[in-house]
Amino acid sequence: MRRKGLASMAVQTVDTPRTPGTGEGHGPAVDLGPAAALSCRECGERFALGPIFACELCFGPLEVAYDLPAGDPEALRARIEAGPTSIWRYAPLLPVPADVAERPNLNPGWTKLVRADNLARELGVEPGKLHIKDDSGNPTHSFKDRVVAQALEAARAFGFTTLSCSSTGNLAGAVGAAAARAGFRSCVFIPHDLEQGKVVMAAVYGGELVGIEGTYDDVNRFCSELIGDPAGEGWGFVNVNLRPYYAEGSKTLAYEICEQLGWRLPDQLVIPIASGSQLTKIDKGLRELIELGLVEEKPYKIFGAQAEGCSPVSAAFKAGHDVVRPQKPDTIAKSLAIGNPADGPYVLDIARRTGGAVEDVNDEQVVAAIKLLARTEGIFAETAGGVTVGVTRKLIEAGLLDPTLTTVVLNTGDGLKTLDAVAPTTGPTATIRPSLDAFRAAGLAH
Amino acid sequence: MRRKGLASMAVQTVDTPRTPGTGEGHGPAVDLGPAAALSCRECGERFALGPIFACELCFGPLEVAYDLPAGDPEALRARIEAGPTSIWRYAPLLPVPADVAERPNLNPGWTKLVRADNLARELGVEPGKLHIKDDSGNPTHSFKDRVVAQALEAARAFGFTTLSCSSTGNLAGAVGAAAARAGFRSCVFIPHDLEQGKVVMAAVYGGELVGIEGTYDDVNRFCSELIGDPAGEGWGFVNVNLRPYYAEGSKTLAYEICEQLGWRLPDQLVIPIASGSQLTKIDKGLRELIELGLVEEKPYKIFGAQAEGCSPVSAAFKAGHDVVRPQKPDTIAKSLAIGNPADGPYVLDIARRTGGAVEDVNDEQVVAAIKLLARTEGIFAETAGGVTVGVTRKLIEAGLLDPTLTTVVLNTGDGLKTLDAVAPTTGPTATIRPSLDAFRAAGLAH
Ligand SMILES: [Zn+2]
Ligand SMILES: [Zn+2]
Repeated sequence: MRRKGLASMAVQTVDTPRTPGTGEGHGPAVDLGPAAALSCRECGERFALGPIFACELCFGPLEVAYDLPAGDPEALRARIEAGPTSIWRYAPLLPVPADVAERPNLNPGWTKLVRADNLARELGVEPGKLHIKDDSGNPTHSFKDRVVAQALEAARAFGFTTLSCSSTGNLAGAVGAAAARAGFRSCVFIPHDLEQGKVVMAAVYGGELVGIEGTYDDVNRFCSELIGDPAGEGWGFVNVNLRPYYAEGSKTLAYEICEQLGWRLPDQLVIPIASGSQLTKIDKGLRELIELGLVEEKPYKIFGAQAEGCSPVSAAFKAGHDVVRPQKPDTIAKSLAIGNPADGPYVLDIARRTGGAVEDVNDEQVVAAIKLLARTEGIFAETAGGVTVGVTRKLIEAGLLDPTLTTVVLNTGDGLKTLDAVAPTTGPTATIRPSLDAFRAAGLAH
Repeated sequence: MRRKGLASMAVQTVDTPRTPGTGEGHGPAVDLGPAAALSCRECGERFALGPIFACELCFGPLEVAYDLPAGDPEALRARIEAGPTSIWRYAPLLPVPADVAERPNLNPGWTKLVRADNLARELGVEPGKLHIKDDSGNPTHSFKDRVVAQALEAARAFGFTTLSCSSTGNLAGAVGAAAARAGFRSCVFIPHDLEQGKVVMAAVYGGELVGIEGTYDDVNRFCSELIGDPAGEGWGFVNVNLRPYYAEGSKTLAYEICEQLGWRLPDQLVIPIASGSQLTKIDKGLRELIELGLVEEKPYKIFGAQAEGCSPVSAAFKAGHDVVRPQKPDTIAKSLAIGNPADGPYVLDIARRTGGAVEDVNDEQVVAAIKLLARTEGIFAETAGGVTVGVTRKLIEAGLLDPTLTTVVLNTGDGLKTLDAVAPTTGPTATIRPSLDAFRAAGLAH
């Protein structure tokens, strides 16, 4: 099998639905369940399923189009409820083969939706209305396991044998772990000067881990070169040539939230924005559930959350712009630090269409929100979770988020991965000698 | 409400079943579901449910005795399967009220049982026979969430308002998080010189965290004083005065393993030994399932795993002793570093009765096993998981563990918490300039 780089793929002309690559094609062998084709989000052109990510006509991003299961919603709901307690309960709605749960993968998902009454009290939200979707419960403790699991199945379908990505954090671990479990080779590219803790988390799964002498931008530029080169043949870059499949993994957050609410749509969602992909796919998932009759249609509002030090989408939203002006990130919320978010314009569309908003908080507010969530609900969130909780507070104060409606706030990662954010301000309340007198003197007895 | 320290409780004389404390008693108000009494593991004497942990007659440890649900096993099995995806699906078998799942707690459990065919291949185990019970999926990423959840319900039942413990690691986070979620005050005692990362994990939930100037032994001695003092009134020390309830949480590992195997007993289990409590309670849980008719009775073997630097039970097993001689721990497996394990003699009994064994591995083998599990199954285990996987390998090589039988190996915690163990030997495979030439020169292309 032979694949070409983006440049060569983008100029070829074939019949509709277009087949990727040289025409040797993957068409007949590809079983990705209900996934029917790739379609361009800009011009709507359709292409056969393959490891491509940009439209040949307009260079727009491609996404998966489905033949979703028609028929009785009750039967589909029952089928889902009888399925495994992982994202694979939604296999009929995902670009994966029907037997996906039997294949070696990390089976992420079905994380907790936590009814957050203590946090609600602090934020002035009505009891029973505020929920945290806590994705720190995934196998490598971030939502990335959801998207990598989709990319892995696409990689299998296309005959790839190496799983790859560039990363400065969560994605590296998710790819390394998924590849190990699936028997794939993995090769992850990181900036050479990453903190040791993050290097260990990326390296422990035993795949290739390559430090690149340069910035994260240099790492990404190098990966783009590699995809177009014979040296990268047989490599699935989860968020490049497998991106259309990868991105669909975020739909599962929408499915789980609605099922866990008793097959109801929430009224409001607060979602972090890095590339913006997650937010757009959650919206897509919600709309699919409505179309399929799995939930009753009603309005919902989607709110985007950014860190002030990397808030290009929030800035555009507030200025009423349709375009997103790139920023140079400078924030402790490193997992959200994408200065030029590819899906920014789509996020703006969704926030405006649903009546939501995009807001940002500064680093101090992020840290305060991490601690607030830990203190009230016993959930230790990554900085991205501090961003969503902090933004939720700000949106309520501004009157943009209605505290009487059912609201779901995402925590996409684990505080253990960003200990540095809270370490400077988190420590013992007292240090004493081991005696009852010292204990009483410190005022700790009741 | 007034409670007394161990000393005063141990000498009082009351009618059978004995009521704890001054006679103001908790009896009528206590609803802990099927828990009927506490019984002495040494002399069998029974006591009313209360915050006591040692027999008044013989000072033996107390454990929970049940009135377990009689009747049709099929009906009970169906009831469990329809329950929540947490330990509370087993509420009918635990010392908790029937409505426990509705109360604010962390809902731990229902972690993955991973079919580990890649690891099996490396260890020479028949495909489909080796499973990892991966408790890193719990809310604070260790099995401690299971036991703390039971202690919390007991604390509620007894009217305590503060949850407390001494800890150098996992337990601190589990107690802090559970207390935060439940609206309890918490006060956790740690040695003052703990590493910053562990202090942050313990402190972030916002409870009191007290550094004690001294060793971990000093911390424990101080806590024992505090329990007997008015300053500690209203305090539930999860693993001291709430220990009988706390310990029962480990039964849920047995329940989950059997249900996840399709309501079958495994043939062999490999369980880490710290105090030894977990191993004895898993055995108790398996026997309950047999008694209740939820699984078919057949022989099973229980193997205990220790680190060589803290292997008092393993040493006793190999020497054929019934008593366990205390050791001074020196191992990277800090969560297992209990030199004088309270349940050591019970562990020896169980290993011998079931035809199992107790074995230990050195620190180097622990690290190798952590990496082996990560590389083969994408599971990044805490050092305790390295101990069980390492011991499994050793037991197979010694012919003590049968590689043709269904075997479950426990991983009780998350590698993110013991990064130091693997950090010195885990890093990038190469560091290169961002160019294809450098990439090829490093031999990374295929
Ligand atoms: Zn197009
Ligand atoms: Zn006794």
